[in-house]
Amino acid sequence: MTFTPSAEWPPPPDGGSAPRVDSPYWNPAVETMDPADRALVVLDKLKAQLGYCYEKSPFYRERWDAAGVDPGKISSLDDLRRIPVLRKQELRTEQAAHPPFGRYLCVPRHEVLRVHGTSGTTGRPTAFGVSRDDWNRIAGAHARIMWAAGIRPSDTIFLGSFFGLYWGGWGALIGGERLGATCFPFGAGVPGQTQQAVEWLAQMQPTAFYGTPSYALRIAEVAREAGHDPVDFGIRVLFFSGEPGAGIPATKSLIERTFGGACIDMGSMAEMSPWMTNAECDERRGMHLWDDIVYTELLDSITEEPVGPGEVGVPVYTHLERQSQPMVRLWSGDLSRYTDEACPCGRTYRRLPDGLFGRADDMLVVRGENVYPAAIEEAIRAAGCDGEFRVEVVRDHALDELTIRAEAMPGLSDHDLREAVLGQIKKKLGLRATVEIVRAGSLERTEFKARRISDRRELSRELETLQQDSKGTSA
Amino acid sequence: MTFTPSAEWPPPPDGGSAPRVDSPYWNPAVETMDPADRALVVLDKLKAQLGYCYEKSPFYRERWDAAGVDPGKISSLDDLRRIPVLRKQELRTEQAAHPPFGRYLCVPRHEVLRVHGTSGTTGRPTAFGVSRDDWNRIAGAHARIMWAAGIRPSDTIFLGSFFGLYWGGWGALIGGERLGATCFPFGAGVPGQTQQAVEWLAQMQPTAFYGTPSYALRIAEVAREAGHDPVDFGIRVLFFSGEPGAGIPATKSLIERTFGGACIDMGSMAEMSPWMTNAECDERRGMHLWDDIVYTELLDSITEEPVGPGEVGVPVYTHLERQSQPMVRLWSGDLSRYTDEACPCGRTYRRLPDGLFGRADDMLVVRGENVYPAAIEEAIRAAGCDGEFRVEVVRDHALDELTIRAEAMPGLSDHDLREAVLGQIKKKLGLRATVEIVRAGSLERTEFKARRISDRRELSRELETLQQDSKGTSA
Repeated sequence: MTFTPSAEWPPPPDGGSAPRVDSPYWNPAVETMDPADRALVVLDKLKAQLGYCYEKSPFYRERWDAAGVDPGKISSLDDLRRIPVLRKQELRTEQAAHPPFGRYLCVPRHEVLRVHGTSGTTGRPTAFGVSRDDWNRIAGAHARIMWAAGIRPSDTIFLGSFFGLYWGGWGALIGGERLGATCFPFGAGVPGQTQQAVEWLAQMQPTAFYGTPSYALRIAEVAREAGHDPVDFGIRVLFFSGEPGAGIPATKSLIERTFGGACIDMGSMAEMSPWMTNAECDERRGMHLWDDIVYTELLDSITEEPVGPGEVGVPVYTHLERQSQPMVRLWSGDLSRYTDEACPCGRTYRRLPDGLFGRADDMLVVRGENVYPAAIEEAIRAAGCDGEFRVEVVRDHALDELTIRAEAMPGLSDHDLREAVLGQIKKKLGLRATVEIVRAGSLERTEFKARRISDRRELSRELETLQQDSKGTSA
Repeated sequence: MTFTPSAEWPPPPDGGSAPRVDSPYWNPAVETMDPADRALVVLDKLKAQLGYCYEKSPFYRERWDAAGVDPGKISSLDDLRRIPVLRKQELRTEQAAHPPFGRYLCVPRHEVLRVHGTSGTTGRPTAFGVSRDDWNRIAGAHARIMWAAGIRPSDTIFLGSFFGLYWGGWGALIGGERLGATCFPFGAGVPGQTQQAVEWLAQMQPTAFYGTPSYALRIAEVAREAGHDPVDFGIRVLFFSGEPGAGIPATKSLIERTFGGACIDMGSMAEMSPWMTNAECDERRGMHLWDDIVYTELLDSITEEPVGPGEVGVPVYTHLERQSQPMVRLWSGDLSRYTDEACPCGRTYRRLPDGLFGRADDMLVVRGENVYPAAIEEAIRAAGCDGEFRVEVVRDHALDELTIRAEAMPGLSDHDLREAVLGQIKKKLGLRATVEIVRAGSLERTEFKARRISDRRELSRELETLQQDSKGTSA
């Protein structure tokens, strides 16, 4: 097929004007559209996006030709399933073969405005190249979604996130600028910066905050040590990405109690920027899927077939407005459920009522039960543990053991906290656990994404083998 | 007086279009203007800026009224001297009394697009509030100045500087975006980030670099440890602010040899953004004073009277295009000399041929000689010391001693390096010193501004007093 760019695609990069301050919607017509009508809009954009990718990207063209798919013959959203799912490892392989951006850049390199990337902690780093028009379109999309979160031009947004390779903070920054808010990109990650952050929060009195849930709680802790009550900062809206915490009910509630503001869950993947197309509105009933910007399928993790409402599936994302490095059917590896029940906000987008509650590859099977890290966090927070905690799954003589260390809480005896955690783990997960209450402040803090839960069973097995070997030798 | 905004002031915020790639100038008419004509342009803008400040800012109005100055009666650049000089401490006092921005903000708070600030290491932090129009005007000014440094839209700029409160990296970023280059804001300051930077430099092959001179040299060192020659990164232009190093001949030469690219010195003060209005062109013969954006006086540090060409003076800056927090006669505390000799680039701006070579308050008097830290660095680098070094001035029985620790160099014996340093210090400063060669890599590195020179004489005196006291007691 040959791609004929239409006057409508891609949409102009300005993202439209901000509405009146009392409007609940940035773009009422688009956000409250009948879902059947939206499906037609999505299909139109999808056809244009697929045609563009096929025309501009040898990477996609080769893949799709090899799979025997003609993107020109995609005539329904259902047809999209004929296009092969794309995995991150394939992007890394392509970039290694065609550095630095891979043959899915789709614009000449000199049109790249910004370079970002992954940290490469799980393999070769991936480079992101974003054109000026895409950058502006991302800003416009984020402005629209941040408006739904309750942010207005009169707000001052404190951005407590690392500005560098990581996409999160930049996306929140350009959305806030486009929306017309005052942006304070304070950053994170530099030694000593959290103490400074507390003083600036007290002095500047921002009305909105962006970061990771773990880091917000860390800031609150340091604030209290310095004699501030985080509620006094006057933050009205806190919005988050990078971790599932803001979508875990007990953690959401903890953040809202701590700061006295609304806790909003957001975030898909850096590759998918505008990464805010998973985002809660100010009703906070799970992230909406802003399908007219990025179209999201939920697929069974094994069969890759669509799942129905309420069923566990993997979100798989397709850009509808990207010209540089567009992603078509990118497999997230996350796990979620969707609902198409109405949201009181009036938006007609589907929602993920439980957020992204796990990853297909880090679901734990403990004594035969499926256990997601987010469910463990929910149980521990619901027990009243507001501090840090760590969970290890170990194997003791072929039996899985959940061992939890949770920090002591003022006003609650260690005994009562331990019993509460045991009770919630039993109630929510149907599991028994070993709980140790440790000194408040003794577990390590993070300014980025927390890693609280680890599966040590492989290690347990190795240790047992070693012990048996050594017994064998000594016998 | 009442301020009547003219159609010409402030100039439109877009900064004008990029010229043809082969044009040496962004704005030829303005940059190569006859200095006498430029003085008229500067005066016109100055009158508008002063009128604006008087009208919008109770802070300026009160100060100037108290000094008996009517800004409406300023009718020559020479008249500007009637307005009192402004010191940073006065800004801090004003912000403490009228938080957070002080009464020199001059725009309603909701018009502030971006908040930044000082780190507050030398007192209460200062908050910067920048309006959207100013932000865009700063981007335009920086684009124009970066063009003069040799940066073109085809360049990829690696920004190895901390993104947070600090203004430097943001200014380089928005200038690069406005110029049309590809910007890679990598950041700095986070543990482990330098190793990552090296891998990305090797993979992405940027053609331009921004950071501090110290950090560029640190990156080069880590690159070599990882088996890379920094020349292979292919960087054509390195531009710097935050430290005087890029204007110190031997350090400039070291950076150019290390990376194989041109080393460009830039930078006035964060308060003065666009801070690039001190900036070298690609001829690299000292920073031009881009006087039609920020008007710069050089004043005697004691009398506050203008100094002539070649005489040591303190740069004192006045914004000509700022609406939010404009600065009028801000005392930098730095020391420099200017020349109005022609530059081969064809620009008719004055230049600072020796950069900002010291600070009025950190000039050392050693055995009766005036010694600037930059001159010590020049001498040590000229001796062939490419590694880190530290200098202490101590007092031993009423005699000042310069003690230098310099890291060993491969291919040069410790004895020869020590002799070379002693020789250069004697030749350039007329001083004797104690030089110790220490193991390569043993002195601490920085990712920001280096602090290599310290005056310990106060401490020496205290120690001597203590020793005498203790003798007295034991006698």
